[in-house]
Amino acid sequence: MLVLIMAGGVGERFWPASRRLRPKQLLDLTGRGSMLRVTLERVGDLARANEIFILTNAEQRGAILAEVAGAVPPENVVGEPEGRNTAPCVGLAALLARRVHGDAPMLVLPADHLVEPAERFREAMRAGSRYLETHDALLTFGVTPTRAETGYGYLRVAGEVWREGPASVLRVGGFLEKPSPERASELVASGCLWNSGMFMWRAGTVLDRIERHLPELAAVLRRIETGLGTRPLDEVLNREYRLAPAVSIDYGVMEKADNVAVMPVDFAWNDVGSWEFIRDVHLADAAGNVAVGDHVVIDGSNNTIVSPDRLVALVGVDDVIVVSAGDALLVCRRDRAQDVKRVVAELKRRGRNDIV
Amino acid sequence: MLVLIMAGGVGERFWPASRRLRPKQLLDLTGRGSMLRVTLERVGDLARANEIFILTNAEQRGAILAEVAGAVPPENVVGEPEGRNTAPCVGLAALLARRVHGDAPMLVLPADHLVEPAERFREAMRAGSRYLETHDALLTFGVTPTRAETGYGYLRVAGEVWREGPASVLRVGGFLEKPSPERASELVASGCLWNSGMFMWRAGTVLDRIERHLPELAAVLRRIETGLGTRPLDEVLNREYRLAPAVSIDYGVMEKADNVAVMPVDFAWNDVGSWEFIRDVHLADAAGNVAVGDHVVIDGSNNTIVSPDRLVALVGVDDVIVVSAGDALLVCRRDRAQDVKRVVAELKRRGRNDIV
Repeated sequence: MLVLIMAGGVGERFWPASRRLRPKQLLDLTGRGSMLRVTLERVGDLARANEIFILTNAEQRGAILAEVAGAVPPENVVGEPEGRNTAPCVGLAALLARRVHGDAPMLVLPADHLVEPAERFREAMRAGSRYLETHDALLTFGVTPTRAETGYGYLRVAGEVWREGPASVLRVGGFLEKPSPERASELVASGCLWNSGMFMWRAGTVLDRIERHLPELAAVLRRIETGLGTRPLDEVLNREYRLAPAVSIDYGVMEKADNVAVMPVDFAWNDVGSWEFIRDVHLADAAGNVAVGDHVVIDGSNNTIVSPDRLVALVGVDDVIVVSAGDALLVCRRDRAQDVKRVVAELKRRGRNDIV
Repeated sequence: MLVLIMAGGVGERFWPASRRLRPKQLLDLTGRGSMLRVTLERVGDLARANEIFILTNAEQRGAILAEVAGAVPPENVVGEPEGRNTAPCVGLAALLARRVHGDAPMLVLPADHLVEPAERFREAMRAGSRYLETHDALLTFGVTPTRAETGYGYLRVAGEVWREGPASVLRVGGFLEKPSPERASELVASGCLWNSGMFMWRAGTVLDRIERHLPELAAVLRRIETGLGTRPLDEVLNREYRLAPAVSIDYGVMEKADNVAVMPVDFAWNDVGSWEFIRDVHLADAAGNVAVGDHVVIDGSNNTIVSPDRLVALVGVDDVIVVSAGDALLVCRRDRAQDVKRVVAELKRRGRNDIV
């Protein structure tokens, strides 16, 4: 099996821990190692080292290479000259993988999700691979919801099209954006699944669908493939990649294609979307405070504290996120965790490249 | 004029900036130098170097000596074996000063107040000294209130007993503890003054009143004076000082004596009682945020930020105090600024001497 790990982006919602040159995928947010390292360990024996491709930003490639040294060959770690969202990333990876490995099934994973247990994840991926031996499909993985989460996208599922033991594949009845709280409850009650952002397909299948639904991107990919006949990858990407339309694989292909299918999976999954994820992986104390690091709370409840480097004391404060990381610290109301990226935007506007 | 600067204590309400060995009086909270250094500069030409006495804690004496080197002779910097509140401190200073300087007027100043402008302060102190040439009184200084502050004590004033140009001395009609907001407004409207915690008296006068109102303390002071005939100060204090009753000069003497008088003063005064004092000495932005140090506020109002050492970002947070200082940081609701000392108490309870 081929594996593409998408490891671009900074993860600005994780500022001040995340920085331009220390992106979220290189942070150890769980105490088990960096998100990228944990993702590689999860892949385990699904793929050999040379079957794993990591796409990242050119600026971050050096740090990524250091993190995966020994586990992924350097030529499989590709730096995009600039981030163009996930469709160009997936298309480029499919193109590069097919040149070396032919039309094998390709698993696409974000570098910064949490999945447990890893063995159940691998069982599902092996089942997906067997499904693709006989089906020309764009397979996505749908996680059984455990709560009416408003931060995730949902998949409506239709009839079963394949079954093998406990594994099954269903048709997709529709993609649903992040819902309101009421709508989320309805979606969970009606059997919708969380859209995990993990996919599997043959390289040829996804390139064919890019050709059909994103012809501009297909043209860029063709020019890249032609260029690679005579010139090195970096040079070709520098010339062509910026011209690719910046669109997500979900919006650009999955929501339009007629061969999309979903495999329900029952492993625990978290997209690590904001500092609030800390509450999903650590126990709260009796007052609802969740803390990583040295802390004292006097009359404060339901706070989220991440401070591996210094002691945090709260007095009379409820429902805030406090994060300390080196030369910066964040205090954010819990229901505003998504807006941490606005801090990064403001710092960029001020030219504060020293601290973003 | 003799000057006693009371520079004991830690100023636990200023944690995490204040620590056991870096007490509030050694902090530069205004950008103009340490509180103690600014207090010495305010004294200016009121006293010669050898007329200034500083009483502090034995543990802090080294740091205090370093701070006042050149301005106060080392033998005038006295380390109490343990803090016993202000009455023993005042009694000991009066005793030591009288041995060298006789019964001159003695000004008593806390090391950690803000007063501006210094020249108007000195004019008032000179007037107080002239009043004491002809009156055997315990003189306190009452600040004209500029707001209905609930954090200060108040003095009720009665008839004028002395006048010289713009300076006057009044009888004291009563001492009033920190009032409720409604009561504070009444007190201000009825002409009460803020009890500044600055005093002036002859050494003999205050020792006489200690004899009358705090006989236990007077006995300790007599044993100290006797001991000094044959043994060094530190040795005598180590043996006797712990036996002094821990009581404030306000409660133990001022509220009981019949020769208390008050000189109204109109300089700006702040007792620097909690982190909220920052709001009295720095301008607020349009959203009511007051900040010392690098900061970004996204949708937050009426916050107090003190972070000289790192950038602070707030998102969606109102009415909090955020203080960063080295290996610790504080997030405190503004109306709980007095409870910062509870953090220090909790850290002591946990044996965290590294961080208090």
